[in-house]
Amino acid sequence: MPLRSLKRINFCLGILPVVIGAQLSQASNGVDHANLFIGTGYHGHTFPAATLPYGAVAPGPDCSVMGWHAASGYHYDKPTIMGFSQTHLSGTGLIELGDFMLMPTVGQIQLEPGKEEQPETGYRSRFSHDDETANPGYYQVRLTDYDINVELTATTRVALHRYTYPEGKQRQVVMDMEHHIGVPNSVKHAYLRVHDPYTVTGYRITDTWWAKSRFIYFCLKFSEPMTGHNIHDRIRKLDYPNIPEQASSKMVAVFQFAENSDKPLLAKISVSPVSMRNARENLETELPHWDFEKIRQAAGEEWAAELGKIEASGPDRELEIFYSALYHTMIHPDISEDVNGEYRGIDKEIHKAEGYTNHTVFSLWDTFRAVHPLFTIIQQERTKDFIASMLAHQSQSAFNMLPSWSMHHNENFCMIGYHAVPVIVDAWHKGLVDAPDEVVLKAVLETTTQPGAPRLKFRNYPQWYGQQHYLRLGYFPDELTPAGTSITLEHAYDDWTVSLMAETMGNVKVAKEYQSRGQNYRNVWDSKTGFFRGKLENGNFFEPFSPRAYHREDHNDREFTEGNAWQYLFFVPHDVYGLIDLIGGPEEFSRKLDTLFTLPPNDDGTAVGDVSGLIGDYAHGNEPCHHVAYLYNYVGQPWKAQERIHDIANRFYHPTPEGLIGNEDAGQMSAWYVMSAMGFYPVNPCGGIYVIGSPLLPGFTINLENGKQFEITANGLSEQNIYIQSVRLNGNPLKNVWITHDSIMNGGSLEFEMGPEPSNWGAGSDLVPFASGKI
Amino acid sequence: MPLRSLKRINFCLGILPVVIGAQLSQASNGVDHANLFIGTGYHGHTFPAATLPYGAVAPGPDCSVMGWHAASGYHYDKPTIMGFSQTHLSGTGLIELGDFMLMPTVGQIQLEPGKEEQPETGYRSRFSHDDETANPGYYQVRLTDYDINVELTATTRVALHRYTYPEGKQRQVVMDMEHHIGVPNSVKHAYLRVHDPYTVTGYRITDTWWAKSRFIYFCLKFSEPMTGHNIHDRIRKLDYPNIPEQASSKMVAVFQFAENSDKPLLAKISVSPVSMRNARENLETELPHWDFEKIRQAAGEEWAAELGKIEASGPDRELEIFYSALYHTMIHPDISEDVNGEYRGIDKEIHKAEGYTNHTVFSLWDTFRAVHPLFTIIQQERTKDFIASMLAHQSQSAFNMLPSWSMHHNENFCMIGYHAVPVIVDAWHKGLVDAPDEVVLKAVLETTTQPGAPRLKFRNYPQWYGQQHYLRLGYFPDELTPAGTSITLEHAYDDWTVSLMAETMGNVKVAKEYQSRGQNYRNVWDSKTGFFRGKLENGNFFEPFSPRAYHREDHNDREFTEGNAWQYLFFVPHDVYGLIDLIGGPEEFSRKLDTLFTLPPNDDGTAVGDVSGLIGDYAHGNEPCHHVAYLYNYVGQPWKAQERIHDIANRFYHPTPEGLIGNEDAGQMSAWYVMSAMGFYPVNPCGGIYVIGSPLLPGFTINLENGKQFEITANGLSEQNIYIQSVRLNGNPLKNVWITHDSIMNGGSLEFEMGPEPSNWGAGSDLVPFASGKI
Repeated sequence: MPLRSLKRINFCLGILPVVIGAQLSQASNGVDHANLFIGTGYHGHTFPAATLPYGAVAPGPDCSVMGWHAASGYHYDKPTIMGFSQTHLSGTGLIELGDFMLMPTVGQIQLEPGKEEQPETGYRSRFSHDDETANPGYYQVRLTDYDINVELTATTRVALHRYTYPEGKQRQVVMDMEHHIGVPNSVKHAYLRVHDPYTVTGYRITDTWWAKSRFIYFCLKFSEPMTGHNIHDRIRKLDYPNIPEQASSKMVAVFQFAENSDKPLLAKISVSPVSMRNARENLETELPHWDFEKIRQAAGEEWAAELGKIEASGPDRELEIFYSALYHTMIHPDISEDVNGEYRGIDKEIHKAEGYTNHTVFSLWDTFRAVHPLFTIIQQERTKDFIASMLAHQSQSAFNMLPSWSMHHNENFCMIGYHAVPVIVDAWHKGLVDAPDEVVLKAVLETTTQPGAPRLKFRNYPQWYGQQHYLRLGYFPDELTPAGTSITLEHAYDDWTVSLMAETMGNVKVAKEYQSRGQNYRNVWDSKTGFFRGKLENGNFFEPFSPRAYHREDHNDREFTEGNAWQYLFFVPHDVYGLIDLIGGPEEFSRKLDTLFTLPPNDDGTAVGDVSGLIGDYAHGNEPCHHVAYLYNYVGQPWKAQERIHDIANRFYHPTPEGLIGNEDAGQMSAWYVMSAMGFYPVNPCGGIYVIGSPLLPGFTINLENGKQFEITANGLSEQNIYIQSVRLNGNPLKNVWITHDSIMNGGSLEFEMGPEPSNWGAGSDLVPFASGKI
Repeated sequence: MPLRSLKRINFCLGILPVVIGAQLSQASNGVDHANLFIGTGYHGHTFPAATLPYGAVAPGPDCSVMGWHAASGYHYDKPTIMGFSQTHLSGTGLIELGDFMLMPTVGQIQLEPGKEEQPETGYRSRFSHDDETANPGYYQVRLTDYDINVELTATTRVALHRYTYPEGKQRQVVMDMEHHIGVPNSVKHAYLRVHDPYTVTGYRITDTWWAKSRFIYFCLKFSEPMTGHNIHDRIRKLDYPNIPEQASSKMVAVFQFAENSDKPLLAKISVSPVSMRNARENLETELPHWDFEKIRQAAGEEWAAELGKIEASGPDRELEIFYSALYHTMIHPDISEDVNGEYRGIDKEIHKAEGYTNHTVFSLWDTFRAVHPLFTIIQQERTKDFIASMLAHQSQSAFNMLPSWSMHHNENFCMIGYHAVPVIVDAWHKGLVDAPDEVVLKAVLETTTQPGAPRLKFRNYPQWYGQQHYLRLGYFPDELTPAGTSITLEHAYDDWTVSLMAETMGNVKVAKEYQSRGQNYRNVWDSKTGFFRGKLENGNFFEPFSPRAYHREDHNDREFTEGNAWQYLFFVPHDVYGLIDLIGGPEEFSRKLDTLFTLPPNDDGTAVGDVSGLIGDYAHGNEPCHHVAYLYNYVGQPWKAQERIHDIANRFYHPTPEGLIGNEDAGQMSAWYVMSAMGFYPVNPCGGIYVIGSPLLPGFTINLENGKQFEITANGLSEQNIYIQSVRLNGNPLKNVWITHDSIMNGGSLEFEMGPEPSNWGAGSDLVPFASGKI
């Protein structure tokens, strides 16, 4: 067997200089620049799978299925491939999917999956990154143990596999129905039926913490007839040669093909959340032929159109980072309906999506921050679908709640907050909600008034949020609700967004009530220490308090989820000015920000999980800090924001597998980059105000869906010239540190003059709208 | 706690005298005479559950779930009740169902099910047969440990429970989603959703050898609001108080109700094979109110109408046996579709039954013999549904085969033969098939020409039938197909029935081919020993041979399934005259029959499983011998048949829990009695010829669906007067030992004169039609 030839890519956390001006690509082709391996190393959790934008399938290699590094199935450091499953999560903290894995093999194989570091076991194969390609909509790898070249492409619901076998070998394809990314024994039931020598259908039902009752169906067709097949049941330890149907939770099938063929063997496999019949219809509708190149080309063109929504110019290296980031914002939320419009609702019933396309995989604690605001600019039509999907979810939910973390007709309540609310309110304000106002308001109010939504702790016992306490006390008592302080902060924000919508609707009563709820963050403020802290039901703060402490055990033992008091200090995006007052005024606020970024290494507990990407205690690897660098704008020091933004980008975004400093998180790590690169960021993700940062690339054209264009230019941008000297919006000087959503959507230009030294630009800005707790 | 008070009923295998003439009930009420406890002891496997004729639900007590005695969930000898599940099998060898068990309790309980003989464990309760009632459509028992009176009734798809709790106790209802009758861990996945304080829905997916991928859904409504609930996950060892939804394969819910109420608590629970939504529609359509008595009365009336199809007169004891038997022929095949016509097909897809009502639970190796022929007389409309269900099954089958043993959208191929074929051909000949001839013929031909249908051995490995060998050699080679000799005999019979249909259709080619195949029984005949024997592929018989030997290991190790060479010697129902020749003529044939019934106790291995009810080696507890006593008619000795039939009835049918000598087998043990009691039996179950036996009761009126009546009278019948002296059909002397189906369906009378001594009646009969291997 060929020796393992794994190209190691060095992982560098230090500052890599930005070489601007060199290799400027004009009218860049996003597809060529997207590097799908970015984020596949370290804890990025991205994948190199072949998928269409927001596609239901993402066929790609699975190297690993257990442990956190396996969240997407692929990890750049892994030496072997188990096979190519059809569904994957991109960048999530959740470890899930990996449905219906196919693996082409030759010769004698073991029907157990084998071990990662023992490629001679199971049916795994070694592979080399030297013979591996991933482009948007296309993946290729050579399986060195079998000398089989594997190529993958996809339509929305159908994965297309092309296997080029070595000559003179008995060809076979393994289908592992037990294979699943995540904890063992997640597959509770599976069924397979071989209809004829070309066609197989089946389904499986999985139960994990992330999707407790998940149904997924497939239809598989081969380009050549099988000569035979075997279904092996790992529970009963039995082989069922050529049996036409079988069921078991631990089942693996081997499909055999004739030894000699001058053509590659193709397999197309569709999925459906509804039925095998629908899966077959999906396959026959989307992919009735066997023209691999045609599908590959169509996939490339669809990606080119999507990535072309933002034409960036700049050095290749930065374009690679930028387009990879933009690409990563277009994986989730996935389409979750069949070509006939049927989907499985969160109530587990079959529904028909009328007038919209149903989607799933909403990781809203992450994506409400920048992903969905970005979507309101470049994915307006899809935003309508996303909102309609969320509203359908709420109407079907056992909890009467909008999605928190929705996953294939399941809600897992992973993470905190009800952040679908700001997403919907923001989209509604931007005219991107196709539902009557009263329907939207009802969904939002029901979500924010549930007496007790479940909070699944990581240690796998259910814990009721205690929203009833929040409604009663205005905060989550520390002893009653794990992570209660962070939930108080986040609910206060979400509640404020309800007041924004109600005010616009003219519902004064609701507006007033929720504006008041928006101030609940103050209930956990400790003026003595100057931090948000855990407050007990009796009104006392929980002691002891250490602002840098993490609580490792399960992220959620005490005040904050996935963070410490420093990291959550700045989470009042709707009332930054109120927070500035609380902290002691602009100067103290600025000092606090400076301190955050300059704290010495933390001795008070180690950061947990995704709390990585540290600059001081600023943690870019996780979401709560993502808006923080921009806050200098609120105290007249935009230049400090500009400096920090470039620092963060330089430290934590690289065109390498390890080029993301934490979970990509269904687009949020990337959306931070995409928006920051263009020079602005939605500090308050609801309401359509974008705060100016400092562009990372010299030029962008946003090709809006309304046919207009918005041009962004950063004149003089270089490694040194990171400071804004002046800004012109549509040719007129912009004195404010923010622009509105409308100013983008109307088309026009935003022109930055960059220089090597901080300037006074923006110091005299008007207050940022929607940042004073009021409307 | 009250002491266990279990009324023991003595089990007597000896001959109980038939006291005829005493307590004659005229115009009998079948409902009052049906004793639902008959067959609940010994290995009868019947149940006392409340069900409608062929209903989808049969709510009843589950005492036991493991072991063969637990097939129906209930066994008369068991001291405790675990709860009341909604679905049960009646009389089968299969051990299955028991879905969605509810158990009312008070006080502290353990959430594990507890042990049968340790009633203080789990949530079980002791009960007394003294405080237990079962009538068609109604069941009642007092749970002595809780002092709760439980009553059950049902519509077709909805079970209605009424619980009368003791005063001053916290009332609760346990719902055990893991509970399943059969092997442990059969429930692979389950889901529960509490919609509001009244309403719960859910589903589960089970995988057993009898139904490898079975989906069942429910909707449950209570008459009072819950005050709270808890869902306990036995896997995660966690309680989820008041959680609105949960999924797990081992889940138990406890629903709590207020302490004091002067009214009983009612629970109605529907099932659906399709969805929770359909289950809810079933419930709302069939049972929109809470009037228990109304439903109970309606159920009684429906049973009265069904049982009234045969009005029997005679002594109470015999009426009890007769109506209990008639009742037991009306449990399966169950309705398997929702009120909207949707059902889950054998292909696991959702279908809509157009123009018929879909049914499942076809135990055809048993029921082709007498149950389906009986149905062609008294269930003509339903026979059309049954055949349509079978044809739908075939069109959806992964094996292209008609049902063998179909079980809730699954085929388990338990037992041998393709006996749906004679059932369909018989019904077709009787005008009871609503499908084009070519569709029927295609389904039959596809079934009988499959190269290899699976034969699941009891030891749980798949074994291919080897039909390809049968097609090639005309028999199943002993070394290639377990039970091959019995399969050869049964396929030969089934094949002959195809020739019957083809001949009538004018398809000479097929008729000829299958008439020839009908002679395949000769291929396993050993003229030297005078038995059917295991024949090897090379044409030699397997040695050693012992005609009384059983092969215990799994019933199927050698020549015969569930039998020995004596018991299978007479299975050539379509060519009895050919068999008589083979055996050596009428006298030798009669001698062989005599020997069968008089063999001394068998030292050559013990009969296995259901091979019980022995008279010599005649085994009435299992099906292969059921027609054998009637064969004396073919050799001019009807009186011997008459004697044997009364002997069998007297020995093996009693109005006691132990009153069935083997598995009731989805109606077959009972159908033998019902038809024999009326004086005739379908020795060849296909073609509409019924061979005269000897009536067991003095009078019957068959109220035919066509509005006509057929009267049967046995004048002078008594304990001694069991011999037919003469017979008149419609007033004319009947010299033949058989009557036709048409003679019944045209209405009329059959009058027997009975006497204490054998007579010559029938000795001069014409040959029995359809008994010479030809058409």
